Amino acid sequence: MPFEYLPPLLRASKSKIVLIVMDGLGGLPVEPGGPTELEAAHIPNMDRLAAEGMIGLSTPIRPGITPGSGPAHLALFGYDPLQYEIGRGVLEATGVGLHVGRGDVAARGNFCTLDSAGNISDRRAGRISTAEAIPLVEKLKDVKVPGVEIEVRHVKEYRFAVVMRGEGLDPDIDDTDPQATGVPPLPAQARTPAARRTAELFNQWIASARRALDRHPKANGLTLRGFATDPNLPSFQDSYGLRPACVSVYPMYKGVASLVGMQVIDFPGETPEDEFSAVSRVWQDFDFFFIHIKKTDSKGEDGDFRGKAAIIEQVDAALPRLLDLNPEVLIITGDHSTPTLLRTHSWHPVPFLLWAPKTVRPDDQTVFGERACAHGGLGNFPALDTIPLALAHAGRLDKFGA
Amino acid sequence: MPFEYLPPLLRASKSKIVLIVMDGLGGLPVEPGGPTELEAAHIPNMDRLAAEGMIGLSTPIRPGITPGSGPAHLALFGYDPLQYEIGRGVLEATGVGLHVGRGDVAARGNFCTLDSAGNISDRRAGRISTAEAIPLVEKLKDVKVPGVEIEVRHVKEYRFAVVMRGEGLDPDIDDTDPQATGVPPLPAQARTPAARRTAELFNQWIASARRALDRHPKANGLTLRGFATDPNLPSFQDSYGLRPACVSVYPMYKGVASLVGMQVIDFPGETPEDEFSAVSRVWQDFDFFFIHIKKTDSKGEDGDFRGKAAIIEQVDAALPRLLDLNPEVLIITGDHSTPTLLRTHSWHPVPFLLWAPKTVRPDDQTVFGERACAHGGLGNFPALDTIPLALAHAGRLDKFGA
Repeated sequence: MPFEYLPPLLRASKSKIVLIVMDGLGGLPVEPGGPTELEAAHIPNMDRLAAEGMIGLSTPIRPGITPGSGPAHLALFGYDPLQYEIGRGVLEATGVGLHVGRGDVAARGNFCTLDSAGNISDRRAGRISTAEAIPLVEKLKDVKVPGVEIEVRHVKEYRFAVVMRGEGLDPDIDDTDPQATGVPPLPAQARTPAARRTAELFNQWIASARRALDRHPKANGLTLRGFATDPNLPSFQDSYGLRPACVSVYPMYKGVASLVGMQVIDFPGETPEDEFSAVSRVWQDFDFFFIHIKKTDSKGEDGDFRGKAAIIEQVDAALPRLLDLNPEVLIITGDHSTPTLLRTHSWHPVPFLLWAPKTVRPDDQTVFGERACAHGGLGNFPALDTIPLALAHAGRLDKFGA
Repeated sequence: MPFEYLPPLLRASKSKIVLIVMDGLGGLPVEPGGPTELEAAHIPNMDRLAAEGMIGLSTPIRPGITPGSGPAHLALFGYDPLQYEIGRGVLEATGVGLHVGRGDVAARGNFCTLDSAGNISDRRAGRISTAEAIPLVEKLKDVKVPGVEIEVRHVKEYRFAVVMRGEGLDPDIDDTDPQATGVPPLPAQARTPAARRTAELFNQWIASARRALDRHPKANGLTLRGFATDPNLPSFQDSYGLRPACVSVYPMYKGVASLVGMQVIDFPGETPEDEFSAVSRVWQDFDFFFIHIKKTDSKGEDGDFRGKAAIIEQVDAALPRLLDLNPEVLIITGDHSTPTLLRTHSWHPVPFLLWAPKTVRPDDQTVFGERACAHGGLGNFPALDTIPLALAHAGRLDKFGA
């Protein structure tokens, strides 16, 4: 993995690197011979950057593997997802700003509806609204278990996250969601003897939590899934010598970024322009800027071809603001493909644009799109190469050996 | 690594493989849209070979990593530089023909100037000339330490190499160069208990050497760096079933070649023509010919765009002499890029030409240059693949499995 051989080569520099990740960027034509979403978008700025820079296609995990968002981002940051796994509970918890330290155990929670016999009648509590859920989460915050500290935070609608902190905890516990209705929630069950006490503590918490929720007509029960602890990822800053900032609207991406030690920037608004403005405000304080654009993926999952292209066009229109900052290296890519044709994440390689005016070797490509990327000078390459390439073009790496 | 899976597949053959390495071959345009050095060079022979053969881009170590010459050559020879490290002292010593056997300890030496207080006033002894340094190295050759054999050889100007041979030696010793003036040289200090005796022996040698140099006005002291032992590389001949020869003008490349067991060929002259003539003289005695062309790199480091192109043209003009020998496989590439624009080694992938008239699959490319290579049939690939590809096209590999 890059950070295993890079640290001895790192060179001090004031150069700045910007990584724009348009979630689910890669697409497919919806009719034979037609354009992809990216190819259909009117993106004069990105086309110019493609002409001046280099393009290619990156593979997030391995060929043929469709990535989830967590692993896809880990790969872009240089952490091989086959080696580093972030548990779901940790992803959910850090995504809403809960700290998951070494030895803590995090889980994802769902409110559910229990019938009078204690069986689950709705696994998502009728998808209660955020407004309805927040007071329930407040009740859960008052539930105590002797010997451990428990923190709960609302995520969205019927979802929440919970973190348990204390001595000797172990996350090796089965989900309590039976993935079925007409049966009761399962108890938290340890998979190994070492996790028995932790499972017991969670069962105590679940019992008290149910009493606290008892009178709610829909959300009178709960299930927990994805028990996990801090993945203990190597620090992005130590590995690459970069002070990294994350600019993202959505919590989950802030969560992944904070797990590798990026500083999450708060900012008003949620458009690409708002995100780029946030970058410009903290420009002096960081060397690396991870900017996450969510809606390309959402439109892809909606099957909204034109909507996805429009989001890409919004990013393109806002780019001059970012270019005015004069980054040494600008990368525009995605974490994975989400073709509107498929309405879901896919394994297709991801368009990748590397712009570095001083050091890039031009490749005769003049537009940014999947077909052009397949002929680009960067070729087909693993997403794990992203940061080493960025560091090289930013003048931040010394020679390897004599 | 290739030699881990190749040996069982090796097949006897009389075929010949030639590997021409133009040091620092890869380049960059000096103006937007302009040609690289290789693209600017008039190379009708290489263009014809590119048309008949296949081209691509090779990555010496890992994407984004700028290689030193030693690791870059190891990679071309099939030894992953992340796994096999040649210590600096060994590279310097073998480069000037000193043998570094298993258990020997080699170091790089610098003459330096010491003031009357014993502090370093010039870390390079005023960069004394080779002519001035040679008699000083002769003095060092007379310095003995009981219990070990010590060999010293001049490298260039103020630099020399030293090898200590004996029982129980260990190279885990810190540099004696403090990398500063106004302070005395450091003693050789062991990093581990096992290296204490070796450090002490070097300190004895240093003390006697200083007395031998005492009266020189500039080079009255010395420092040692890069203590290292034989990297114990697997044998090229055993791994690939090839009798390998090295034809190189510069010592360092002879050094790397001899570390993998190539036979270094002595020859008169130093032009590409002289090197190709040397190959023709020993053609019957070897199966593999590594030919190193240094000046492409030197011109690159000088920032001499036209000069670098001219060296490539010299190689091209001399090629017919080599082609007359009818090699089964001819590879023309570099060890890394040294763009004149950057005046230094760089991480950019390296143009690669594979010509094998009987077995190559043509790729519609008709010239040898970076842009053409980016579209070549070999694609982007690790330099570690070079020897397996050569062996295959030379008819020297059996089928893997049934």
